[in-house]
Amino acid sequence: MSQYWSDLAASLTPYVPGEQPKDRKYVKLNTNENPYPPSPRVLEAIRGAVNADLRLYPDPTCGDLIRTIAEYYGVTPEQVFVGNGSDEILAFSFAAFFNPGGEPILFPDITYSFYKVYAGLYGIPYRTVPLDDEFRVPLEALSGPNGGVIVPNPNAPTARYVETDSFRDVLTRNASKVVILDEAYIDFGGRSAIGLVKDYPNLLVIQTLSKSRSLAGLRIGFAVGHPDLIEGLNRVKNSFNSYTIDRLALAGAIAAFGDQAYFEETTRRVVATRERTAASLREMGFRVVDSAANFLFISHPDRQASVLFGELRQRGVLVRYFNQPRIDNYLRVSIGTDEEMDVFLRAVRDILNG
Amino acid sequence: MSQYWSDLAASLTPYVPGEQPKDRKYVKLNTNENPYPPSPRVLEAIRGAVNADLRLYPDPTCGDLIRTIAEYYGVTPEQVFVGNGSDEILAFSFAAFFNPGGEPILFPDITYSFYKVYAGLYGIPYRTVPLDDEFRVPLEALSGPNGGVIVPNPNAPTARYVETDSFRDVLTRNASKVVILDEAYIDFGGRSAIGLVKDYPNLLVIQTLSKSRSLAGLRIGFAVGHPDLIEGLNRVKNSFNSYTIDRLALAGAIAAFGDQAYFEETTRRVVATRERTAASLREMGFRVVDSAANFLFISHPDRQASVLFGELRQRGVLVRYFNQPRIDNYLRVSIGTDEEMDVFLRAVRDILNG
Repeated sequence: MSQYWSDLAASLTPYVPGEQPKDRKYVKLNTNENPYPPSPRVLEAIRGAVNADLRLYPDPTCGDLIRTIAEYYGVTPEQVFVGNGSDEILAFSFAAFFNPGGEPILFPDITYSFYKVYAGLYGIPYRTVPLDDEFRVPLEALSGPNGGVIVPNPNAPTARYVETDSFRDVLTRNASKVVILDEAYIDFGGRSAIGLVKDYPNLLVIQTLSKSRSLAGLRIGFAVGHPDLIEGLNRVKNSFNSYTIDRLALAGAIAAFGDQAYFEETTRRVVATRERTAASLREMGFRVVDSAANFLFISHPDRQASVLFGELRQRGVLVRYFNQPRIDNYLRVSIGTDEEMDVFLRAVRDILNG
Repeated sequence: MSQYWSDLAASLTPYVPGEQPKDRKYVKLNTNENPYPPSPRVLEAIRGAVNADLRLYPDPTCGDLIRTIAEYYGVTPEQVFVGNGSDEILAFSFAAFFNPGGEPILFPDITYSFYKVYAGLYGIPYRTVPLDDEFRVPLEALSGPNGGVIVPNPNAPTARYVETDSFRDVLTRNASKVVILDEAYIDFGGRSAIGLVKDYPNLLVIQTLSKSRSLAGLRIGFAVGHPDLIEGLNRVKNSFNSYTIDRLALAGAIAAFGDQAYFEETTRRVVATRERTAASLREMGFRVVDSAANFLFISHPDRQASVLFGELRQRGVLVRYFNQPRIDNYLRVSIGTDEEMDVFLRAVRDILNG
């Protein structure tokens, strides 16, 4: 606490990302990164942009990237927004669509823990809607007086996916409010709601290149929605920072949408490894939540998750543990390469047998 | 206006950056970019970072870059913050140090026009302090009841520099408030106030790599201040986006501080070109404000600036015109290469003779 902080700064409880330890080499399954490198075409495109033009500002409208994404998803450029990671877009969305003085916004009780932080940053009241015991999002509870709705699909950290068309009813019932679907993990088994945007002017779909495009280190997210929603985001963005995405990130992101074969192959491999890993864990007695993401959410009836977390860490395997009500006996395990998951599974087996 | 916008989004008047036209090739003197490319060592360092590790998140603490900057300026890492361009840091500063309900913050009436926009974004009341007729910042007026102070030094778009030690009095008189010195252009002739940070816990100095380091396309800014101020910035940043700077920008920024000879040589050339250009303009009858920046602020007694702006544009030379009270007869002209400034000077001469 400092006399120089604003009331806002003093009130904040910042988000804490997964650890990035440097004390030793870990099998790193704690931040849902893609185990495969970006497409060679992406690296090539970035190399091509490492030149004297870096002295010049990037295009503040990110026009080329926006047109690329629009074409890829069959929407218009006016329906696309891009940001410095999907987190930045989420933050802008809270500012652009939710009101401090209004009804509380709704999101699941178990979900991406940054939502509460954004609500704190922009003074937005919120109410959490409890998942059922199977960690399903109770869609029927996402209605009544509210200031907006935000749901990740698949949800994090549960990995559970809701069939996209099920949201039609939520969108209709909340027609006067913005409904945000946070699809950070959609490419690992779900069907994007981008196809619903034409039917619902209140739907904003947010995705990222950090997971399925192997570009967490480049910081690119995007949103698709009605042009009015995109204009709302641009109003906030242009009141915050004219140039949020640098020239190299723009070049890499554009190239990422140009290598569909690589995208499909690496995604397919992650899914195959996930299913194999889930089967092995179930054999060892774990409860494994059905996953449509690049991670698993697991719990063992006989072993405390917090203890398992520590024992895995000792063995050089880093996973994520959330000390939160209802999920404090679960671990979130990112899907690595087959080799990495074998190391993980061996470590788990050792611990269970030890 | 959309029913889906928050009251905030509806209220905003976003900042408009200098145009980046693509209709033809211009001599581009409108956004204060550096005419020289980044150091070859910077490009080399970035190329080295274009690899498979882009699949991994960057270091959210930006530790290596922060240590590099701390060492360069002889401060501790706890006194340094980095952001996605100095604009992002300015935005975070308004949130971290200024209060919506408090006294108005103070800044010059003629200054970086984004300050009003940040005030709008965070609901901060402000009062502008008029520059004198020579565009000098009246330091004695930066006192009395206020919620904080922000001044660019050199100021923009006037280019005028105030001797750094003159701010000691401002810092003392406003000891309970944060005083921000925005030093985007300091390396072109001023002396940084970073040396004052040890004496004033209420001083935050903000700089950028966009101008003197030729890296506008990479988006890197930094701030130096008391550890309490840096912690305030981190609280806001970590409530907004965990990873604001990508891996390539981190690599390039670190390298930029490692090539002092290149930095000094390119800065020296910009300053020499500026002085030569200023002399030529004065010979042609222009009023040229004394500049310690990489741009000139000029006015001609016989020619309307708005008309000059249009005639230069027709001749393929792009400068910046602000249609604002007190400066609507001035042009801001970025310093390009000697060749570019010769094209500009010839165009001006043609117009004056034509």
